[in-house]
Amino acid sequence: MTKVAAGITTSLDGYITGPNDGPGRGLGEGGERLHYWVFGGPWSYAEEPRGEATGADKELLDEAMGGRVGAVVGGRNTYEAAGAWGGQNPFGVPFFIVTHRPEDAPADAGFTFVNGLDEAIAGAREAAGSKDVFVMGGADIIRQALRAGYVDELSISIAPVVLGDGKRLFHDFDETVSLEHLRLLQSPFATHISYRVVR
Amino acid sequence: MTKVAAGITTSLDGYITGPNDGPGRGLGEGGERLHYWVFGGPWSYAEEPRGEATGADKELLDEAMGGRVGAVVGGRNTYEAAGAWGGQNPFGVPFFIVTHRPEDAPADAGFTFVNGLDEAIAGAREAAGSKDVFVMGGADIIRQALRAGYVDELSISIAPVVLGDGKRLFHDFDETVSLEHLRLLQSPFATHISYRVVR
Repeated sequence: MTKVAAGITTSLDGYITGPNDGPGRGLGEGGERLHYWVFGGPWSYAEEPRGEATGADKELLDEAMGGRVGAVVGGRNTYEAAGAWGGQNPFGVPFFIVTHRPEDAPADAGFTFVNGLDEAIAGAREAAGSKDVFVMGGADIIRQALRAGYVDELSISIAPVVLGDGKRLFHDFDETVSLEHLRLLQSPFATHISYRVVR
Repeated sequence: MTKVAAGITTSLDGYITGPNDGPGRGLGEGGERLHYWVFGGPWSYAEEPRGEATGADKELLDEAMGGRVGAVVGGRNTYEAAGAWGGQNPFGVPFFIVTHRPEDAPADAGFTFVNGLDEAIAGAREAAGSKDVFVMGGADIIRQALRAGYVDELSISIAPVVLGDGKRLFHDFDETVSLEHLRLLQSPFATHISYRVVR
């Protein structure tokens, strides 16, 4: 059965970006540190990251992107912050972007722009077939998905840094969610914790 | 050499209590869940917790309280919320309570009331000898200790729950702190992550 898994990286103080993130500024000041694990170690916006994930970090990426995931859902802000991934869907599977302006979708870029989370999840479920749907963020999309009860599994990668400011994953999220621990992976660059959402 | 270790339990969304904590109300609504790991499983304020930590949770407690810790520092609010631990220092080592009213100290209860964190850390360092100082919280005391640069190691036990409200460990903490991963322990009731504070 198709599961909906949401996953994102935060600092120890719960931020998914440093301060002043946005288009051309990536994950904001100090935000690179959140994704050291994705690129195998330190990098900065001054240079493109060149490294690759290794060890436990690679294991997590391979598991998510290698086989289990049949469709991805992301938010428009994340899409813009990522510079539209250079103009092409970076995943090998259908990628649904939640936006208020679906008419902005670029042609032949592999992105499906949809008006709202419900439509994105429905489309992604259908596209995923027997595989899973991965909700990649940003924070607002993950909060919406948790509130709507879509999320079966929640994975948080905690980077070893206190950022002190930025966008907080659980900002203005005032619901209680019971979780059950599923998996744990540790690298020098992140603690990857996965939970089942208890209903 | 004496290290200063700070440690506390939070929900996945970073709260050290549920809403409406305080004297007679413990860790607030739903806050018991934060400490399932301390008592070996579910309990509630309706009954006294009777269980004991097991497995990885016991390992963490034994390590902290068994040998390494030579003195403990806690805040007055935590002292009050805990009902003064029944009127007696629960640790087998000197326990310094940070308060604006040191004259409130009860006699013969094993607590040393001191006026401010600096005095508490200095007293605890001296009392600990070659052992470590443990800063147990609450959140404000840990933030103060981090800001003042006292903390050598930071341990966070993350309980598998999103509480949605309460007192947030990093509330109004606007500094960046670089961390290095040290240790990881996992039980069904918490993910215990320890970091070295990088200076």
